[in-house]
Amino acid sequence: MGERNKIWTAALVVIGDEILSGRTHDKNIAQVASWLQVQGIRLAEVRVVPDDQTAIVEAVNALRRRNDYLFTTGGIGPTHDDITVDAVAAAMGVDVIVHPEARALLEAYYDTRGGLNDARMRMARTPEGAHLIPNRYSGAPGIRIGNVFLMAGVPNITAGMLDALTGTLEGGDPVLSETVGCWIAESEVAELLREVEQAHEGVQIGSYPFFREGRSGANFVIRSTDADQLASCVHTLCEGLGEMGREFTPDPPRGAPSFRP
Amino acid sequence: MGERNKIWTAALVVIGDEILSGRTHDKNIAQVASWLQVQGIRLAEVRVVPDDQTAIVEAVNALRRRNDYLFTTGGIGPTHDDITVDAVAAAMGVDVIVHPEARALLEAYYDTRGGLNDARMRMARTPEGAHLIPNRYSGAPGIRIGNVFLMAGVPNITAGMLDALTGTLEGGDPVLSETVGCWIAESEVAELLREVEQAHEGVQIGSYPFFREGRSGANFVIRSTDADQLASCVHTLCEGLGEMGREFTPDPPRGAPSFRP
Repeated sequence: MGERNKIWTAALVVIGDEILSGRTHDKNIAQVASWLQVQGIRLAEVRVVPDDQTAIVEAVNALRRRNDYLFTTGGIGPTHDDITVDAVAAAMGVDVIVHPEARALLEAYYDTRGGLNDARMRMARTPEGAHLIPNRYSGAPGIRIGNVFLMAGVPNITAGMLDALTGTLEGGDPVLSETVGCWIAESEVAELLREVEQAHEGVQIGSYPFFREGRSGANFVIRSTDADQLASCVHTLCEGLGEMGREFTPDPPRGAPSFRP
Repeated sequence: MGERNKIWTAALVVIGDEILSGRTHDKNIAQVASWLQVQGIRLAEVRVVPDDQTAIVEAVNALRRRNDYLFTTGGIGPTHDDITVDAVAAAMGVDVIVHPEARALLEAYYDTRGGLNDARMRMARTPEGAHLIPNRYSGAPGIRIGNVFLMAGVPNITAGMLDALTGTLEGGDPVLSETVGCWIAESEVAELLREVEQAHEGVQIGSYPFFREGRSGANFVIRSTDADQLASCVHTLCEGLGEMGREFTPDPPRGAPSFRP
């Protein structure tokens, strides 16, 4: 499985005026990020750009070259503002073609849904040399060309495409994480965090404060690809918090009311 | 109020490993975007970068130069992973100083909260030449230096800082928008959208499909700084949808069950 200890990275370009206007709250950053962690791939950077070819080309070219993988979400539908395929083809210097397999998929899908009109045919267009990513929810497939993956903007369609890609991309060891929640102002514990992190090689501790019911608290997220280092770090941190006389909850479940803002 | 018809733009750099790991779902992109619209400023690009000085410096320098304003969220707290002040100072080539006014604010805030320790003093540090942005929720202020605005990562603290900035930044006419929801596959209406948009100068139509209760629908968002053009465009679009025999809802309220995915 490739070089040992190589860190595999990906970037994400979120495409859409609706995100930049604030109308739509993006859900793809979080779901792509979580999915990549399980694949052993680190999400290194995200850019959100408008439905504008120049902006898309710039982001795609900057990020595809310095990451192992580049994902895009949005702009692969049938309407005039869906220009991702054209922009990615331009970025990569290839033509746009009608992909025979995509066309066949769309013909089958729209056979009982009013037929394949001009707008729907747009979704059969891909950069030349592309492969398709299955879409289990609707007709139009995702697209892979080289190390670039074009996915839908609608989050549950994207989720299906990610699922179809699960296990197919080379990555490193998955990043493991544990969370320790504590009713403490993070400013009281900053020194402890720094010391504990320094004592555990390859472990990162993030500190995420919240305010709730008039009290200050923080979740400390400990991350490592090494399960033993992770466990040792959590143990040392909890010991330190205990010595400060604080209640803490190792690994509080998501949504646990006491330790989530 | 400055040149007429100038389009004012801003960019946002979201700083934090927790967003890139998928652990935290960002809420600042949407709230900064919505706030900017009301100020008459267009959000041109967003980048999400890790808690890494090189990455922050690159994003800050790329974006502050080509936009009227640059906002950052995250990384201004008291812990070891809060490096935004240092990174922005490095990007702008200025020193980091202890800001006397910020120090006084923190001394007052922590007077009844255990005093000002080393970690808390980190939040009094600013790039040299900075002004403070009031924080109504907790002690540490936001920071303005030149056209760069450093804000908190915790969304409701950021909201308070944005509120403090409301009306203080020069911008253009606010962008107005109306939404028309319709039970129609966007691929059936793509040609209509293109025609109606072309017939109304300075108006953009975005198409945002959804799938609900086994049916396809889409919201069409019409945007313009000109109220008359906007109204005329909405009217023409609704006429076109009516001629296709489709029910539609002009300007469905946010969260209206029929037309929201």
